[in-house]
Amino acid sequence: MSTKDEILKYLQEHNQYVSGEELSEQLLVSRTAIWKNINTLRNCGYEIESMTNRGYRLVSSPDILKPELILSGLKTKSLAKKVFCYDKIDSTNEEAKRQALTGAPDGSLFIAEQQDGGKGRLGRTWNSPAGTGLWFSVFLRSSQLPLQVTNITLFAGLAVCRAIRSQTNAAAMIKWPNDVVIGSKKVCGILTEMAAEVDRIEYVVVGIGVNVNIESFSDELSVKATSLRIECNHPVDRIPLLQKILREFESVLNEYSSNPESTLADYKTLCVSLNRKVQFTKDKTTVSATGVDIAPDGKLIVRCENGELISINSGEVTIQGIYGQT
Amino acid sequence: MSTKDEILKYLQEHNQYVSGEELSEQLLVSRTAIWKNINTLRNCGYEIESMTNRGYRLVSSPDILKPELILSGLKTKSLAKKVFCYDKIDSTNEEAKRQALTGAPDGSLFIAEQQDGGKGRLGRTWNSPAGTGLWFSVFLRSSQLPLQVTNITLFAGLAVCRAIRSQTNAAAMIKWPNDVVIGSKKVCGILTEMAAEVDRIEYVVVGIGVNVNIESFSDELSVKATSLRIECNHPVDRIPLLQKILREFESVLNEYSSNPESTLADYKTLCVSLNRKVQFTKDKTTVSATGVDIAPDGKLIVRCENGELISINSGEVTIQGIYGQT
Repeated sequence: MSTKDEILKYLQEHNQYVSGEELSEQLLVSRTAIWKNINTLRNCGYEIESMTNRGYRLVSSPDILKPELILSGLKTKSLAKKVFCYDKIDSTNEEAKRQALTGAPDGSLFIAEQQDGGKGRLGRTWNSPAGTGLWFSVFLRSSQLPLQVTNITLFAGLAVCRAIRSQTNAAAMIKWPNDVVIGSKKVCGILTEMAAEVDRIEYVVVGIGVNVNIESFSDELSVKATSLRIECNHPVDRIPLLQKILREFESVLNEYSSNPESTLADYKTLCVSLNRKVQFTKDKTTVSATGVDIAPDGKLIVRCENGELISINSGEVTIQGIYGQT
Repeated sequence: MSTKDEILKYLQEHNQYVSGEELSEQLLVSRTAIWKNINTLRNCGYEIESMTNRGYRLVSSPDILKPELILSGLKTKSLAKKVFCYDKIDSTNEEAKRQALTGAPDGSLFIAEQQDGGKGRLGRTWNSPAGTGLWFSVFLRSSQLPLQVTNITLFAGLAVCRAIRSQTNAAAMIKWPNDVVIGSKKVCGILTEMAAEVDRIEYVVVGIGVNVNIESFSDELSVKATSLRIECNHPVDRIPLLQKILREFESVLNEYSSNPESTLADYKTLCVSLNRKVQFTKDKTTVSATGVDIAPDGKLIVRCENGELISINSGEVTIQGIYGQT
């Protein structure tokens, strides 16, 4: 780690005034080196206050996606310990899959300021404008995966939902399987892809797109899409949110291993698809039903109008009142 | 197509003496060009007889893997219409997965004279020496896949088994799920890998390795591995066998779509794992049982010694008398 990064880490960890003398002694570098590196950090966009007799204090970090900013203060044990950042890329999921072939480490994070080929579920495109969102993929080799791997995508949604609730005052909910919504509009989409033998998972890539600071959407999109900035009426710092999502994702994977019922119960509490009228397609006809439960294997259980209970495991389910559905 | 390839195709399609005059008129090139290209073909290893007043006749083609040789006479409708050949590659499955990211066409065939990183099931290595086997992968996008995708790997085994029986006199059988065996030894292994969203397959790569003309195996391997050359006591032409496997694979996929019961019945007839004592691992202990049936979803159903019926869908099942098991 460079002296600059060491100083940054020290200031972040202490979150109060730290004297130049303390920094010099702890990091074993000269006072002049401290002063020079503080200036370098300021030039990089860090706001660092200095006060005579008290020292330096980190006031704010720039909202740019750099490995050192993401790693600094990240409270995960094994997730995202290797970070790949891009100014612009086709799709972080595609990059993760490419790097999977050349040995990307388990838990790697791929994140971009902008995607020009972002993908959603069911082959859809995902809009990922520069600098206004969190567009990232988490790469997991099989050692970290739950046995019931299809649930990983539900729990990624749960992690994002929890993180948004903790970092902002937005009442985020989950639309089964893994959209995160605020009110009736989508704020996050998740695309989980996997590589497997017929009976053995090789790896999973969980692609997460969060509309953080997008200021407005096109007329067409604004019916069903929103951002945290729109919902909270102020910009939201992306890096603390990202760190929280990663931390929650690691937690929820661990929770699920030790206590799957509790994790699923938490998911259900935040799931907007339950106790609501939903519509889905079966044998090419549209069926109306009510969402009633999430099965242990992650399927949505619905009660049809004739009282029949059906499990749904794929495709598209619309909910009355969500994304402009009537 | 080059003049050389056009001449070759014409000779292959006619399978009798064709006069230089006929070739010249049909292909619109000079007699001198015909004569020069015939010599080029001979230099490439094609045996072409010439007789005064009768013309040219193709006697045999060289046993080398070239797209034009593989495509010529290939009787598939859509499979392997695009062929990628390599002298040496790490693994045709890996290459197929790399090219999947850059848009390899549905049905592409990847084949190599030699693999130096060949892979088997369960992370094992697969021995693929130069020029003596068929080491190839078939790349299938979702449009060509059966709904019950795990069965594709069983049916690849069925296709290889049928093709070996048709092209040689070896009594090939299938060891569930998809090894092809002759007597008690393995002649073909199959590794099926897939890329998928949680609820949608993107593509499948079916990697097939057939020990065709390997002359001998190490002491360790010879207990459980064999080749067609060893079993038939003569070398076997690789390209006609490859073409037959591809044709059978396409047939079996079509058969399965229209009549899954019949395909499964055919598989069972050739399956050496039924009505035999088998052993498998469950909860880390070895269980002895008898193979009794293949379920519609491709699982092996066994009867344990206490009479209990169990479905097995993964891992390793050993069979008494096969691969040196006692």
